[in-house]
Amino acid sequence: RAAPKRVLSLLNGGLADPDAPLLHADDLGVLRGEGVFETLLVVGDQPVELEAHLARLGRSAAMLELPAPDLTAWRACVRRAVAAWSEEPAEMVLRLVLTRGRDPAAEGGPRAVGYALGEPVAPAVLAQRRDGVAALTLTRGIGPDLAGHAPWLLLGGKTLSYAVNMAALRHAARMGAQDVVFTAADGSVLEGPTSTVIVAQGTTLCTPPAELGILPGITQAALFRAARAAGWRTRVRRLKVPDLLAADGVWLCSSIRLLARVHTLDGQLLPDTGLTSALWRLLRFALPEPCLHG
Amino acid sequence: RAAPKRVLSLLNGGLADPDAPLLHADDLGVLRGEGVFETLLVVGDQPVELEAHLARLGRSAAMLELPAPDLTAWRACVRRAVAAWSEEPAEMVLRLVLTRGRDPAAEGGPRAVGYALGEPVAPAVLAQRRDGVAALTLTRGIGPDLAGHAPWLLLGGKTLSYAVNMAALRHAARMGAQDVVFTAADGSVLEGPTSTVIVAQGTTLCTPPAELGILPGITQAALFRAARAAGWRTRVRRLKVPDLLAADGVWLCSSIRLLARVHTLDGQLLPDTGLTSALWRLLRFALPEPCLHG
Repeated sequence: RAAPKRVLSLLNGGLADPDAPLLHADDLGVLRGEGVFETLLVVGDQPVELEAHLARLGRSAAMLELPAPDLTAWRACVRRAVAAWSEEPAEMVLRLVLTRGRDPAAEGGPRAVGYALGEPVAPAVLAQRRDGVAALTLTRGIGPDLAGHAPWLLLGGKTLSYAVNMAALRHAARMGAQDVVFTAADGSVLEGPTSTVIVAQGTTLCTPPAELGILPGITQAALFRAARAAGWRTRVRRLKVPDLLAADGVWLCSSIRLLARVHTLDGQLLPDTGLTSALWRLLRFALPEPCLHG
Repeated sequence: RAAPKRVLSLLNGGLADPDAPLLHADDLGVLRGEGVFETLLVVGDQPVELEAHLARLGRSAAMLELPAPDLTAWRACVRRAVAAWSEEPAEMVLRLVLTRGRDPAAEGGPRAVGYALGEPVAPAVLAQRRDGVAALTLTRGIGPDLAGHAPWLLLGGKTLSYAVNMAALRHAARMGAQDVVFTAADGSVLEGPTSTVIVAQGTTLCTPPAELGILPGITQAALFRAARAAGWRTRVRRLKVPDLLAADGVWLCSSIRLLARVHTLDGQLLPDTGLTSALWRLLRFALPEPCLHG
């Protein structure tokens, strides 16, 4: 059985043809980037960390004052997408998308539109699991202490307004890098455009705190749990760029790529202390088999 | 003939049913807020400042590395929308939307999707032309000098990633205000979420410079041209919040609402020096009749 290139499962029920239009021209998810999303990995028939992704979808929705996601409906929506996927390839990228819906002028009030869209993992992503990435530090221009008192900035929310994240990746590509580490105005390390930054300092794994206005990482959290169970120490602390250069390893952690070692930062080669394979072993404990990198 | 509630004109040709889906679930305009837009007023059969809006659409597209808009196709697209609009109401809001198109994994490379969507001017907007607005200053959190050296922040681009702008307006509404004046981390006055800030200092009209990373205002520019022709002075200069409080008038200027006096800023009543009607007279010179405010 050939793998379908895409599957599309609707929150309101049923599968749909991904090659047929779904969204109206006046959907506020399009007109204003008003919506939230999650991207999760499905391995075989298992959506990885589904409940954590649904919980984060709910937190992002609350920041946008969208109605709380109907978790029962989302679980069913995900199940339909997984059931519609063929056995091969064994890994599927599943995006959960929730838009605010059509502009109220259209029909007396917006009604949120939700769907799950599945597709294969891109070959470039598989290559980065294995080979790592060169990354650039790029400023996000904001101070490190805004998240608590400027809720309108939606810091730490995973919204459909990701144009800056994508522009940063294109900027990096022009400079010969494959990824980005965003920094705050004071040089604090924030996050990647689609990933969480982790560093090793000896056998302590560190990641920056969510209070900086960054997205709490689900894969990072799973990795840290597995690490602690295996006797590593983990810390959530503020890091500056020199901390990355001095670390015993820097990785970008995310739901699909899982783990990508940063082998080069701002053009400077980072030492390979050989910890990457240890982290992959921890991830294999944390995630369903056959989650894997080779 | 009853007014249609909406008209939808496609960049690739023809009109479409606005109540039928148009965009695919994997359009990067939805998934990532990757696209650009303009909103312009159509009065009778005349799209106001169309060429300026198309030029700005092109500048925004360049920031996102989208293909340069096909101006001939856009002009025809707008003409079709205008022709399809009924005589009443005499004013139409026309949104020009250009998304990056479907995720390349779908069919070998994204192809931009463009359309013009027309709808009536909302009653709340008409009321604000007449009554003005209470506004809040809210920080955007960024420094005032980033635009030149951080192109990935897309400052001054009109992208579909407008979730923060909308969240700021909802925050203002919760505080009893109808609009927002964004400020930089140093307190510099930037712009409204969908408007340009102008102030009167005597008979000099001032607006903040685009170099702050704000969108150059088309209606503000038309107003300033008319003002100079009528003997006013105009200046582009940096302003701080105290300059707004001390001014002889503060207005938010935009393509649909045209001009809204800020009668209250951060809860403080601003003096009404009676200049608003003079500015409306200037705008009537600048824009086609019957552009209006009552």
